[in-house]
Amino acid sequence: MTSAHLKFERATEKVSACVSGMRPSAVRNLFAAANRSDIISLAGGMPDVSLLPQSAVRKATKAAWSDEMSVALQYGGTDGRIETRRVFSDLMRDEGIRCKPENIIITSGAQQALDLIGKTFLDPGDIVITEGPTYLGALQAFSAYEPDIRCIPFDEAGMRIDLLEAELERIGKDNPRLKFLYTIPNFQNPGGVTMVPERRKRLIELSKEYNFIVVEDDPYGRLRYDGGHVLPLKALSDDVVYLGTISKVFAPGLRCGWVAAPSGVLSKINLAKQGTDLCGSSFDQVVVEHYFRDTPWQKTLQKFVKTYRTRRDAMLKALDEYFPPEATWTRPEGGFFVWVTLPTYVDTSSMLAEALASGVIYTPGDGFFPDGKRGRNSMRIAFCYESPENIDEAIKRLAAVIEEKLELYRAFIEAGALKEE
Amino acid sequence: MTSAHLKFERATEKVSACVSGMRPSAVRNLFAAANRSDIISLAGGMPDVSLLPQSAVRKATKAAWSDEMSVALQYGGTDGRIETRRVFSDLMRDEGIRCKPENIIITSGAQQALDLIGKTFLDPGDIVITEGPTYLGALQAFSAYEPDIRCIPFDEAGMRIDLLEAELERIGKDNPRLKFLYTIPNFQNPGGVTMVPERRKRLIELSKEYNFIVVEDDPYGRLRYDGGHVLPLKALSDDVVYLGTISKVFAPGLRCGWVAAPSGVLSKINLAKQGTDLCGSSFDQVVVEHYFRDTPWQKTLQKFVKTYRTRRDAMLKALDEYFPPEATWTRPEGGFFVWVTLPTYVDTSSMLAEALASGVIYTPGDGFFPDGKRGRNSMRIAFCYESPENIDEAIKRLAAVIEEKLELYRAFIEAGALKEE
Repeated sequence: MTSAHLKFERATEKVSACVSGMRPSAVRNLFAAANRSDIISLAGGMPDVSLLPQSAVRKATKAAWSDEMSVALQYGGTDGRIETRRVFSDLMRDEGIRCKPENIIITSGAQQALDLIGKTFLDPGDIVITEGPTYLGALQAFSAYEPDIRCIPFDEAGMRIDLLEAELERIGKDNPRLKFLYTIPNFQNPGGVTMVPERRKRLIELSKEYNFIVVEDDPYGRLRYDGGHVLPLKALSDDVVYLGTISKVFAPGLRCGWVAAPSGVLSKINLAKQGTDLCGSSFDQVVVEHYFRDTPWQKTLQKFVKTYRTRRDAMLKALDEYFPPEATWTRPEGGFFVWVTLPTYVDTSSMLAEALASGVIYTPGDGFFPDGKRGRNSMRIAFCYESPENIDEAIKRLAAVIEEKLELYRAFIEAGALKEE
Repeated sequence: MTSAHLKFERATEKVSACVSGMRPSAVRNLFAAANRSDIISLAGGMPDVSLLPQSAVRKATKAAWSDEMSVALQYGGTDGRIETRRVFSDLMRDEGIRCKPENIIITSGAQQALDLIGKTFLDPGDIVITEGPTYLGALQAFSAYEPDIRCIPFDEAGMRIDLLEAELERIGKDNPRLKFLYTIPNFQNPGGVTMVPERRKRLIELSKEYNFIVVEDDPYGRLRYDGGHVLPLKALSDDVVYLGTISKVFAPGLRCGWVAAPSGVLSKINLAKQGTDLCGSSFDQVVVEHYFRDTPWQKTLQKFVKTYRTRRDAMLKALDEYFPPEATWTRPEGGFFVWVTLPTYVDTSSMLAEALASGVIYTPGDGFFPDGKRGRNSMRIAFCYESPENIDEAIKRLAAVIEEKLELYRAFIEAGALKEE
């Protein structure tokens, strides 16, 4: 063993149990390799920040180096700047939520909120309920605290509340291990589905009946392309812990998300946050505040909505046109993602290498489940970032890759070597 | 019990073991109340950002809304922007450290680095060695992972390596519970002391002998007011995990710190970071990069050094002039802090209320120890933020408060009711 190896071994043998259990994602590594200019990516969930007018960004930034420089450059409070929290309070009011700035804590993106919620509530073995599939960043954040994650499937009307009730019956009333339910009710990531009002109402009732906290993650709520606004869970019950972010309505490069919660919960999250980062970026908070105060951001948001709607339409049209009859997919009314389900004999992780060779990438479905076992025949495809022409081309390429897989299996089925699904 | 109380109880009964153990600091609450304009604060460690030229901040910010807008507004990699890491690599080279940009990960201030190091290495009961007293934010960050923290006292030459050796003998060689030693070798927080070269060399030897990681936190290294540069631990051994930050040489409002470490350690920290915040602020990283590339930052740094030197001199002079003979204090060659030790019968926490009434605040010493029991007769006083005139006035006020305490005890001693120390 060389000395370099020895050093590596000595440091890694010191790694904590929770981080030892984390594995670098093979998919992530594949994506890193996939920066050839001829590859069309349906993988990431990056907003198209090129739609932001430079004049608005310049205007929002100005305060940080002029009037408010001394604040923007200095440490801030752990909760974040009150003026920026007021902006977030106003943003929530538009959605039907009444929440005072004092009941908000600013986080470094909603991702930090997920980590802090894990840290604040989870001991190893505690139960968390999520949609299955769900946002892989939430799974990563929670898994550091070694919980027992129970997944509830969704359909086009959101989380299957009947299946949730069955799971809750198994868990039992007032089970001290049951901590919270995490949901993305609007244009779910990765599902694209939206929870209908009656299910939202029932979910709140169940949270009181079974005594669990509801964590509502709402990054896409303002990106609705058809249909009417659905009231957030937080508007139905003030007990809900609501996560917001400016990442999809302004820019994720400024790390600014927030948690709106009852003060008892918030004070605990504040305690957890102090040791985590002291405070978020004052600079970013000043820029964000002035973006929403001094620029015509609603007009820019309409541009986002119009652009993403066109891209979603292009994706759904291409799926209808090119995808084989064995595939099914969701039809999102907003957000960034479509969830595709293929026959169970297709493994989308191994198929990714072939897709990459054909010049298209997507996110395999298994990463959206805590065990990495379910979802192997599904994939998330994002329509947020590429042009309608690229989306059409990407879906065509992907359809050809899938078609090749299916042909092989169809031959097996015809020969009686495989049972039709 | 009212319904509001019930809700609070139900949420707090769900709090994790580690956050349940965290207590809101009484001192913090007192500080929050202490924003009367006639109060002079020696409590905080805030750099004086009013010394930064507006033209430099404007120039650094420009890239974020012009040439590099698309990068500044978008998600970045978990490790951070390579161009900004190159700046940090250059900053370390000035100090005598050779470290490639690839061996750096950018964090949200050095505080996030402390949390990530705790997360990456600590299971409950693992041993961490620190100076005692040490930075309270480090204690907060580590304590979330429930370690057994062993404190080694310092003298004017830094950590007492003889006492470290004795502690290591008690811990034993290759003890799997021993994870890392955390030190602030330059102008320690709160001690103000600097570890001399021979102790640094011996510390590195001991780390290899006893198999522990050395975590070197160096926020103040460039703020030296007398004496010559001392080589960082990282320059003596590439195995050291080095934490840097721009908070004290530029601005803490931009959350930009970094970890320089061997790649085996860095890949584990990266895994821990993914779930914690996805990535840091791209916007801040672009601004920081251009501050160090496009502005005369060394000239500004000299202004910081000159200003803080004058303030340190004012503090040491006032201490010599006003403080009673029973008090001792450190004489820092750089950084922000002086550590004052009073006779053991003085409790600086309870004395803080009297100091506040006299219009001066400081940080009581017990917060800088993991158990909150030691350090009760000490205090940290910061000279970074107030003018020399205010520092003189503050020390005069503080001396009067201490004098009043001491008079009482002197009377007890004279009466034979207390033994002289």
